[in-house]
Amino acid sequence: MFKQVIIVRKDIKMDKGKIAAQVAHASIEAYKKSDAKEKAGWESEGSKKVILKVDDLKGLMSIYERVRKKFPCSLIRDAGRTQIEPGTITVLGIGPCEEKEIDKITKHLKLL
Amino acid sequence: MFKQVIIVRKDIKMDKGKIAAQVAHASIEAYKKSDAKEKAGWESEGSKKVILKVDDLKGLMSIYERVRKKFPCSLIRDAGRTQIEPGTITVLGIGPCEEKEIDKITKHLKLL
Repeated sequence: MFKQVIIVRKDIKMDKGKIAAQVAHASIEAYKKSDAKEKAGWESEGSKKVILKVDDLKGLMSIYERVRKKFPCSLIRDAGRTQIEPGTITVLGIGPCEEKEIDKITKHLKLL
Repeated sequence: MFKQVIIVRKDIKMDKGKIAAQVAHASIEAYKKSDAKEKAGWESEGSKKVILKVDDLKGLMSIYERVRKKFPCSLIRDAGRTQIEPGTITVLGIGPCEEKEIDKITKHLKLL
Protein backbone atom coordinates (compact mmCIF):
# COMPACT_ATOMS: atom_id res chain seq x y z
CA MET A 1 0.00 0.00 0.00
CA PHE A 2 1.29 3.40 -1.02
CA LYS A 3 0.37 6.85 0.13
CA GLN A 4 1.49 10.41 -0.03
CA VAL A 5 1.66 12.41 3.19
CA ILE A 6 1.59 16.19 3.28
CA ILE A 7 2.32 17.95 6.55
CA VAL A 8 1.17 21.52 7.20
CA ARG A 9 2.53 23.90 9.85
CA LYS A 10 -0.26 25.09 12.08
CA ASP A 11 1.67 28.05 13.52
CA ILE A 12 1.38 30.05 10.29
CA LYS A 13 -1.80 31.92 9.55
CA MET A 14 -3.00 30.70 6.15
CA ASP A 15 -6.58 30.54 4.91
CA LYS A 16 -7.98 27.38 3.33
CA GLY A 17 -7.15 28.46 -0.24
CA LYS A 18 -3.58 29.24 0.70
CA ILE A 19 -3.24 25.89 2.49
CA ALA A 20 -4.66 24.07 -0.53
CA ALA A 21 -2.19 25.77 -2.88
CA GLN A 22 0.78 24.93 -0.63
CA VAL A 23 -0.36 21.33 -0.30
CA ALA A 24 -0.72 21.06 -4.08
CA HIS A 25 2.82 22.43 -4.55
CA ALA A 26 4.17 19.81 -2.15
CA SER A 27 2.13 17.04 -3.70
CA ILE A 28 3.39 17.67 -7.23
CA GLU A 29 7.00 18.26 -6.21
CA ALA A 30 7.23 15.08 -4.14
CA TYR A 31 5.44 13.15 -6.91
CA LYS A 32 7.99 14.33 -9.47
CA LYS A 33 10.81 13.03 -7.28
CA SER A 34 9.29 9.58 -6.83
CA ASP A 35 10.34 6.71 -9.05
CA ALA A 36 8.22 4.89 -11.63
CA LYS A 37 7.45 1.94 -9.35
CA GLU A 38 6.21 4.18 -6.54
CA LYS A 39 4.14 6.27 -8.95
CA ALA A 40 2.56 3.25 -10.59
CA GLY A 41 1.78 1.48 -7.31
CA TRP A 42 0.26 4.58 -5.78
CA GLU A 43 -1.85 5.43 -8.83
CA SER A 44 -3.16 1.89 -9.15
CA GLU A 45 -4.46 2.17 -5.58
CA GLY A 46 -6.21 5.53 -6.05
CA SER A 47 -3.40 8.01 -5.26
CA LYS A 48 -4.11 8.17 -1.54
CA LYS A 49 -3.16 11.49 0.06
CA VAL A 50 -3.24 12.25 3.74
CA ILE A 51 -2.94 15.80 5.05
CA LEU A 52 -1.47 16.08 8.54
CA LYS A 53 -0.49 18.95 10.79
CA VAL A 54 2.50 19.78 12.93
CA ASP A 55 2.88 22.42 15.63
CA ASP A 56 5.68 24.51 14.18
CA LEU A 57 8.76 24.77 11.97
CA LYS A 58 10.88 22.84 14.45
CA GLY A 59 8.45 19.93 14.32
CA LEU A 60 8.33 20.04 10.53
CA MET A 61 12.11 20.06 10.18
CA SER A 62 12.44 17.21 12.63
CA ILE A 63 10.23 15.08 10.37
CA TYR A 64 12.07 16.30 7.29
CA GLU A 65 15.43 15.19 8.68
CA ARG A 66 14.03 11.72 9.23
CA VAL A 67 12.47 11.32 5.79
CA ARG A 68 14.67 13.19 3.37
CA LYS A 69 17.07 10.34 2.66
CA LYS A 70 14.43 7.62 2.71
CA PHE A 71 11.56 8.91 0.60
CA PRO A 72 10.92 11.34 -2.22
CA CYS A 73 10.05 14.57 -0.48
CA SER A 74 9.66 18.28 -1.00
CA LEU A 75 9.90 21.11 1.47
CA ILE A 76 7.87 24.06 0.20
CA ARG A 77 8.92 27.67 0.70
CA ASP A 78 6.26 30.20 -0.07
CA ALA A 79 7.02 32.91 -2.59
CA GLY A 80 5.36 35.24 -0.12
CA ARG A 81 3.29 37.24 -2.56
CA THR A 82 0.32 36.85 -0.23
CA GLN A 83 -0.40 36.35 3.46
CA ILE A 84 3.05 35.30 4.75
CA GLU A 85 6.72 36.33 4.65
CA PRO A 86 8.69 35.38 1.51
CA GLY A 87 10.71 32.21 1.96
CA THR A 88 8.62 30.84 4.81
CA ILE A 89 8.63 27.05 4.91
CA THR A 90 4.97 26.07 4.95
CA VAL A 91 4.50 22.37 4.18
CA LEU A 92 6.37 19.13 3.59
CA GLY A 93 5.31 16.58 0.99
CA ILE A 94 6.45 12.96 1.36
CA GLY A 95 5.96 10.19 -1.15
CA PRO A 96 4.23 8.35 -2.68
CA CYS A 97 5.94 5.73 -0.56
CA GLU A 98 5.13 2.53 1.32
CA GLU A 99 2.41 3.29 3.85
CA LYS A 100 3.87 1.06 6.55
CA GLU A 101 7.24 2.79 6.24
CA ILE A 102 6.03 6.37 6.37
CA ASP A 103 3.58 5.56 9.16
CA LYS A 104 6.52 4.72 11.41
CA ILE A 105 7.54 8.37 11.23
CA THR A 106 4.26 10.28 10.93
CA LYS A 107 1.64 8.17 12.71
CA HIS A 108 1.73 10.43 15.79
CA LEU A 109 0.58 13.44 13.76
CA LYS A 110 -3.08 14.43 13.59
CA LEU A 111 -5.15 15.08 10.48
CA LEU A 112 -5.26 18.74 9.47
CA MET B 1 2.75 33.29 -18.47
CA PHE B 2 1.37 29.95 -17.37
CA LYS B 3 -0.79 29.01 -14.46
CA GLN B 4 -2.83 26.20 -13.08
CA VAL B 5 -6.35 26.95 -11.87
CA ILE B 6 -8.20 24.72 -9.43
CA ILE B 7 -11.87 25.35 -8.79
CA VAL B 8 -13.61 24.14 -5.64
CA ARG B 9 -17.37 23.70 -5.12
CA LYS B 10 -18.51 25.72 -2.16
CA ASP B 11 -21.85 23.90 -1.77
CA ILE B 12 -20.18 20.77 -0.35
CA LYS B 13 -19.18 20.69 3.27
CA MET B 14 -15.47 19.87 3.37
CA ASP B 15 -12.96 20.89 6.02
CA LYS B 16 -9.65 22.49 5.08
CA GLY B 17 -7.75 19.19 5.04
CA LYS B 18 -10.31 17.60 2.76
CA ILE B 19 -10.24 20.60 0.43
CA ALA B 20 -6.44 20.50 0.32
CA ALA B 21 -6.45 16.79 -0.58
CA GLN B 22 -9.02 17.30 -3.35
CA VAL B 23 -7.07 20.26 -4.73
CA ALA B 24 -3.86 18.21 -4.70
CA HIS B 25 -5.61 15.39 -6.61
CA ALA B 26 -6.78 17.85 -9.26
CA SER B 27 -3.41 19.54 -9.45
CA ILE B 28 -1.49 16.33 -10.10
CA GLU B 29 -4.06 14.88 -12.51
CA ALA B 30 -4.23 18.03 -14.66
CA TYR B 31 -0.43 18.30 -14.55
CA LYS B 32 -0.07 14.75 -15.83
CA LYS B 33 -2.30 15.56 -18.79
CA SER B 34 -0.37 18.68 -19.78
CA ASP B 35 2.30 18.53 -22.47
CA ALA B 36 6.04 19.01 -22.01
CA LYS B 37 5.99 22.62 -23.23
CA GLU B 38 3.26 23.62 -20.79
CA LYS B 39 4.97 21.81 -17.93
CA ALA B 40 8.35 23.40 -18.65
CA GLY B 41 6.97 26.90 -19.09
CA TRP B 42 4.93 26.71 -15.92
CA GLU B 43 7.74 25.28 -13.82
CA SER B 44 10.24 27.87 -15.04
CA GLU B 45 7.87 30.57 -13.79
CA GLY B 46 7.36 29.06 -10.33
CA SER B 47 4.40 26.71 -10.90
CA LYS B 48 1.71 29.31 -10.17
CA LYS B 49 -1.49 27.82 -8.78
CA VAL B 50 -4.69 29.73 -8.15
CA ILE B 51 -7.52 28.24 -6.11
CA LEU B 52 -10.97 29.57 -6.99
CA LYS B 53 -14.49 28.77 -5.89
CA VAL B 54 -17.78 28.19 -7.65
CA ASP B 55 -21.30 28.10 -6.19
CA ASP B 56 -22.31 24.56 -7.08
CA LEU B 57 -21.98 21.54 -9.37
CA LYS B 58 -23.86 23.27 -12.18
CA GLY B 59 -21.38 26.13 -12.11
CA LEU B 60 -18.44 23.74 -12.05
CA MET B 61 -19.74 21.69 -14.97
CA SER B 62 -20.41 24.82 -16.98
CA ILE B 63 -16.72 25.76 -16.65
CA TYR B 64 -15.69 22.17 -17.38
CA GLU B 65 -17.61 22.12 -20.66
CA ARG B 66 -15.79 25.25 -21.75
CA VAL B 67 -12.30 24.08 -20.87
CA ARG B 68 -12.23 20.35 -21.45
CA LYS B 69 -11.30 20.49 -25.11
CA LYS B 70 -8.95 23.45 -24.81
CA PHE B 71 -6.76 22.71 -21.80
CA PRO B 72 -5.45 19.74 -19.84
CA CYS B 73 -7.99 19.29 -17.09
CA SER B 74 -9.21 16.89 -14.45
CA LEU B 75 -12.58 16.60 -12.79
CA ILE B 76 -12.17 14.96 -9.39
CA ARG B 77 -14.73 12.58 -7.93
CA ASP B 78 -14.24 11.83 -4.28
CA ALA B 79 -13.89 8.21 -3.22
CA GLY B 80 -16.25 9.15 -0.39
CA ARG B 81 -14.47 7.35 2.40
CA THR B 82 -14.87 10.48 4.54
CA GLN B 83 -17.18 13.46 4.86
CA ILE B 84 -19.09 13.26 1.54
CA GLU B 85 -21.02 10.83 -0.64
CA PRO B 86 -18.96 8.48 -2.86
CA GLY B 87 -18.62 9.75 -6.42
CA THR B 88 -19.31 13.38 -5.58
CA ILE B 89 -17.57 15.75 -7.99
CA THR B 90 -15.60 18.12 -5.77
CA VAL B 91 -13.06 20.11 -7.75
CA LEU B 92 -11.83 20.85 -11.26
CA GLY B 93 -8.15 21.27 -12.11
CA ILE B 94 -7.17 23.16 -15.26
CA GLY B 95 -3.70 23.50 -16.71
CA PRO B 96 -0.93 24.47 -16.54
CA CYS B 97 -2.01 26.60 -19.49
CA GLU B 98 -1.61 30.12 -20.83
CA GLU B 99 -2.81 32.54 -18.18
CA LYS B 100 -4.44 34.91 -20.65
CA GLU B 101 -6.43 32.07 -22.19
CA ILE B 102 -7.74 30.54 -18.99
CA ASP B 103 -8.50 33.98 -17.54
CA LYS B 104 -11.06 34.48 -20.30
CA ILE B 105 -13.08 31.66 -18.78
CA THR B 106 -12.39 31.87 -15.05
CA LYS B 107 -11.72 35.54 -14.29
CA HIS B 108 -15.21 36.07 -12.87
CA LEU B 109 -14.59 33.50 -10.13
CA LYS B 110 -13.42 34.53 -6.66
CA LEU B 111 -10.48 33.15 -4.72
CA LEU B 112 -11.40 30.34 -2.36
